[in-house]
Amino acid sequence: MKKIYLDYAATTPVDPRVAKAMLPFLSQKFGNTMSLHSFGQEAKLALEDSRQVMADMINAKPNEIVFTSSATESNNQALKGLALSERSESKGKNHIIISSIEHHCVLESAEWLKSQGFKITKIPVDKYGMVNPKDIGKGIRPETILVSIIHASNEIGTIQPIAEIGKICKQKKVYFHTDVSQTFGKILIDVKKMNIDLLTASSHKIYGPKGAGLLYIREGIRLVSLLHGGGQENGLRSSTVNVPAIVGFAKSAEICKKEMLKEGKRLTKLRNKLIKNVLKIKNSHLNGDPIKRLPNNANFRFDFVEGESLVMRLDAEGIACSTGSACSSMTLEPSHVLLATGLRPEQAHGSLRVSLGRWTTEKEIDQLIKVLPEIIRQLRQISPYGKKA
Amino acid sequence: MKKIYLDYAATTPVDPRVAKAMLPFLSQKFGNTMSLHSFGQEAKLALEDSRQVMADMINAKPNEIVFTSSATESNNQALKGLALSERSESKGKNHIIISSIEHHCVLESAEWLKSQGFKITKIPVDKYGMVNPKDIGKGIRPETILVSIIHASNEIGTIQPIAEIGKICKQKKVYFHTDVSQTFGKILIDVKKMNIDLLTASSHKIYGPKGAGLLYIREGIRLVSLLHGGGQENGLRSSTVNVPAIVGFAKSAEICKKEMLKEGKRLTKLRNKLIKNVLKIKNSHLNGDPIKRLPNNANFRFDFVEGESLVMRLDAEGIACSTGSACSSMTLEPSHVLLATGLRPEQAHGSLRVSLGRWTTEKEIDQLIKVLPEIIRQLRQISPYGKKA
Repeated sequence: MKKIYLDYAATTPVDPRVAKAMLPFLSQKFGNTMSLHSFGQEAKLALEDSRQVMADMINAKPNEIVFTSSATESNNQALKGLALSERSESKGKNHIIISSIEHHCVLESAEWLKSQGFKITKIPVDKYGMVNPKDIGKGIRPETILVSIIHASNEIGTIQPIAEIGKICKQKKVYFHTDVSQTFGKILIDVKKMNIDLLTASSHKIYGPKGAGLLYIREGIRLVSLLHGGGQENGLRSSTVNVPAIVGFAKSAEICKKEMLKEGKRLTKLRNKLIKNVLKIKNSHLNGDPIKRLPNNANFRFDFVEGESLVMRLDAEGIACSTGSACSSMTLEPSHVLLATGLRPEQAHGSLRVSLGRWTTEKEIDQLIKVLPEIIRQLRQISPYGKKA
Repeated sequence: MKKIYLDYAATTPVDPRVAKAMLPFLSQKFGNTMSLHSFGQEAKLALEDSRQVMADMINAKPNEIVFTSSATESNNQALKGLALSERSESKGKNHIIISSIEHHCVLESAEWLKSQGFKITKIPVDKYGMVNPKDIGKGIRPETILVSIIHASNEIGTIQPIAEIGKICKQKKVYFHTDVSQTFGKILIDVKKMNIDLLTASSHKIYGPKGAGLLYIREGIRLVSLLHGGGQENGLRSSTVNVPAIVGFAKSAEICKKEMLKEGKRLTKLRNKLIKNVLKIKNSHLNGDPIKRLPNNANFRFDFVEGESLVMRLDAEGIACSTGSACSSMTLEPSHVLLATGLRPEQAHGSLRVSLGRWTTEKEIDQLIKVLPEIIRQLRQISPYGKKA
């Protein structure tokens, strides 16, 4: 049985074209970018070419791009680095605004900053997971340093009005950071037009290798480094530069840029077919915004069904999906994103995220549509509440 | 002209056996270790197998191994994580001891901690770059949290008496961290016998890929995380786990372990031949300890020669080496390690590090021995002081 992967929002396979671009940098062009000799200069050149590609992706300058090991690192670096920098400059600012549906790495970075004396405001979302820009405007205080809002939710796919939020931040003179891990390479991003000051993107979400992320930092913004040492990445991110991963990341971005429009349409069509058919199941619902959502994301909930059991049963059928159910998380709490949209914990437990990608075929979607109703029926049979359904 | 790489201390090519082990994890076994489905479980299994390999390398338990993105990250995590943790537990301890020849990432982490109110003592070294364990004993105060000493210098190759230092730290009840990036896979390390509490190792120094490091943390030691988020690596190091790099790191460690004894002897022999012949050049000297040094390291200095020019001239001859000269560093200062051994700046400027590795042949060493005297002669010709030589 060929397995069906429908968890592209969790991670993606490396595109063979990307792997091919990376391979020479493992054992042949393996130099350290800090070395003076030709091995080092060859590596340095590949690094700077990659930086240019990334700058072009978001309409930034190459010197505004810092490569990191992941989106988690970029988000930690952005939030902690800016907060600590502003504090060290004694500007008396200590307030950060995030949304209630940020990724764990933003939430937990904010929590840590709270433990260090910073004040955190979490902006709520509506039932579709949408932030209201007006709430951001109201939340900004004289002591606000930063607003950090995820571009699109990794769980429910809702796309936030980033440009509007950026405009408000610019007017009120606070920094604006956005995590675009789920939209980079899928939706056009322009840091100038959208008034973005700091931006996080990830390689392994766009068919690039794990181990590479980037942080865009608008020229002139100063951050305290998370990683001190040899002074790589313009002094901000010390560590021997992971050239193979960065070359792969750049290649994956180039491919996404080229294929973005066509692939977005293809996935939206498949995704819509999936949603239309799954919602035929009794007591099933779509989580997230029905219109303003990622082309590759569908997130359902089924009353009287436990998400983990559903994922395990689908896995037994060779189909890989994910859930916002408690058991899939480290904290044993159901997804904070689903709860933030107003769902009760027992509703969040019944969620199923299906995320499509480059190798998703209509046949695969048809297979999920085919097996899902029976699995749901069986799970409801064994649920204490399910027989109502 | 086939180029000769003699800068293995800076970085190493990925061993083809390692690349082969990694490749399936790029595009086939690409799952996220946090996923419940079979793709995720397959990745998780590979991660835990790798962790076991690493634990076995240093006589630790698997739950004491945390994978990071690099040695720089591990060193930052060890120093900052422990210092901040001890402070948050209000033990009133605020003192850290390092040596004057630590890697930049330890030095700069310590500098940052100093800016945060911690006290730093730098233990001096003798003219061979050797730390005297008695100095460590004398330096420890009631408020000392941690001693961090590099196992072997990445520049001059001097191997420190780690077991003795570990014993003193244990007696005095302070934590002992060591960066073994240059010895891991080259010299047997036993964290129990050597009384090591925290240990940093790197993948790209041992023919593994860039983008993987490890931090050994003795059971029971608590660190503040540098990267907050999804709770990977037992909650200490959040970020999607870079399974391909970790699998490669483990494979590279296995190969090193198996070949360690034989390869150590082979490199020592080649290295000794190199030293013996280079020291025939007039006004040339060996930096570092003549006996207690890494099998693959030779570090020379040549009076009246500028190291950067020397590296560039060797590069033109197809030979890649490095220098502790000012121009090769970000700070435009000559190597702090060479200065710590008592050299004057102009002496440090004339240094040349030759580091051998798995693919170094006797023919390559002979070639360096052949071309070096004439290059030195020519460089001295153009030096204002050189005509004395």
